Amino acid sequence: MLKPGARIGILGGGQLGRMLALDAARLGFDVHIFTPEDNSPAARVAAACTVAPYDDVDAVARFAAGVDVVTYEFENVPVETAKAAAQHAPLRPGVKALEVCQDRVTEKRFVNDAGIETTPWLAVASAQEAAGAVTALGVPSILKTRRLGYDGKGQQVIRNAGEAAAAFDALGGVPCILEAFAPFTREVSVVAARSADGQVAAYPLAENRHEGGILRTSIAPAPGADALAGEALRIASAILQGLDYVGVLAVELFVLEDGRLWVNEIAPRVHNTGHWTMDACAVSQFEQHVRAVAGWPLGNPAAHSAARMDNLIGDDVMRWQALASEPGVCLHLYGKGDAREGRKMGHVNRLSPLA
Amino acid sequence: MLKPGARIGILGGGQLGRMLALDAARLGFDVHIFTPEDNSPAARVAAACTVAPYDDVDAVARFAAGVDVVTYEFENVPVETAKAAAQHAPLRPGVKALEVCQDRVTEKRFVNDAGIETTPWLAVASAQEAAGAVTALGVPSILKTRRLGYDGKGQQVIRNAGEAAAAFDALGGVPCILEAFAPFTREVSVVAARSADGQVAAYPLAENRHEGGILRTSIAPAPGADALAGEALRIASAILQGLDYVGVLAVELFVLEDGRLWVNEIAPRVHNTGHWTMDACAVSQFEQHVRAVAGWPLGNPAAHSAARMDNLIGDDVMRWQALASEPGVCLHLYGKGDAREGRKMGHVNRLSPLA
Repeated sequence: MLKPGARIGILGGGQLGRMLALDAARLGFDVHIFTPEDNSPAARVAAACTVAPYDDVDAVARFAAGVDVVTYEFENVPVETAKAAAQHAPLRPGVKALEVCQDRVTEKRFVNDAGIETTPWLAVASAQEAAGAVTALGVPSILKTRRLGYDGKGQQVIRNAGEAAAAFDALGGVPCILEAFAPFTREVSVVAARSADGQVAAYPLAENRHEGGILRTSIAPAPGADALAGEALRIASAILQGLDYVGVLAVELFVLEDGRLWVNEIAPRVHNTGHWTMDACAVSQFEQHVRAVAGWPLGNPAAHSAARMDNLIGDDVMRWQALASEPGVCLHLYGKGDAREGRKMGHVNRLSPLA
Repeated sequence: MLKPGARIGILGGGQLGRMLALDAARLGFDVHIFTPEDNSPAARVAAACTVAPYDDVDAVARFAAGVDVVTYEFENVPVETAKAAAQHAPLRPGVKALEVCQDRVTEKRFVNDAGIETTPWLAVASAQEAAGAVTALGVPSILKTRRLGYDGKGQQVIRNAGEAAAAFDALGGVPCILEAFAPFTREVSVVAARSADGQVAAYPLAENRHEGGILRTSIAPAPGADALAGEALRIASAILQGLDYVGVLAVELFVLEDGRLWVNEIAPRVHNTGHWTMDACAVSQFEQHVRAVAGWPLGNPAAHSAARMDNLIGDDVMRWQALASEPGVCLHLYGKGDAREGRKMGHVNRLSPLA
């Protein structure tokens, strides 16, 4: 167990790093951020910050040598960066989680190998393979780059078979995955943690609504989802164990009409669909992650309130004045200056008594 | 209303500044700390820190010129420092609150002039006056330095009249106040806020237990205290208005057998007896203070849970491992290295459903 006063290094300086840093501070830890970005949201609440590119492995090594544990706040930290850090401090979660989750094909294969269902999928390495895959899986289906997609970026919906080759080219001709359209009735996610000694704790499920590929709203605990909790926990536990994971991760799940759960995506980090825990649980996902990577026992993931989380995306944040005046809103702003379209600027939680 | 991204300057770098900084960050503000102390708890979570003595008014002026509002986290900020800051940025709360609350005699006079009861008291400027005052007010009574006392420091309990002169000398021969022993049944406190436009909001009362002059435990909402809430709000409102106050303050109250409330002490700042709000209210006292000084509307001070707050004083913090393992404990550590006797190192909140 890391003692209070120990230093936690975080690769990444965005809002997730910021919220991790705030909760780490609450537990008495000092935070050191590593980010290529000047004046990042996380650096402004941290005890120390190294600004350097991720491929500056010397800087990464110095950073890791100066902290007691290294974690990361996003899944596209280069594996080489993570490996360089891991030579100088415990890296939690480990390199494997990045290797698996940075590639949609590797991730799907890992999930299926663990006996967990996903939508049918095929790896696609050429325009020709794209056409063949669409023939095999049908339309509508979704062509995604294997790597580096987020918030709906790097995706093309294919509505008829003739579009396959063009979609592949539109994504830059890079290795892709074709995913059959999942016949889901709703999307939920499970945010779960695994401690260094293998204990697992899952928050109540959140029901999630996306717009334009970006999370808009989470409702938690997900209404009428009690029957899904056991299966979701089984899935999350299998993934956590399979990745030998330490920390918080999120699993996005499709709920099918018959109640089956298909894994949509794994995020090996704290997750936007867990932001509701900041105000509705005694232990937020951020504290939970800090506890896990510090080798502490996990906190109780029970909710004391129900919550609706709404993201403030781009110009939404201009409504801060009205939101600040609304009784009962818990407002979270990320300290980003530039409210670009599609950029996550903050979120609000609205609490209500548990049903 | 200060926009998110604005800079909030805080005079003082202790745990109250740290918790203010964390909640200011959550609302999207940048925090700049001014403190004489190297590597202070607050500086390690702030975007910027100036380390300089309080009497370096040039440093204070530069600090204030670089922020959008200045506030303070403790009541013994020198008035000259506060005045220097106020020339370059709005100072909230203002100088008057410091002038009144830094001197126990001035404070008692202010409270009584507002039509609010306190224990009987007399100003004492010499050993001879001390003896006379004890004769007038009886024993037991408490001799306190007018200035710079906290956590039971700068006080002498007088149990028989003959001790008066010696007690005065033991306190260094400085100007003092003699307070009659208040025949209270319990101590409660009201933590209340006033916004820039004069709106007032008070948290539910906390019941407080001290040991050796140091707060040990707060229970909130104070059990069986519903009947006191109205009078406590009236008292807090009168004080807030009389000080033309913007921000959070705390009023410690003695509850007499007949239900009357006597003001014990005013703290013109966020307060240890309000730490329970961090986990039991949607808006903590720290967020509330930031809202007020930023010119925002106040948040809802209602509690969603009941709480018991226990301070971790000195060696108590060595129990962090057991506390971290106790389900349902909300642990707050201040990042102080040296667990000296009597030093506030952290606190824990334990939540339960509202009665």
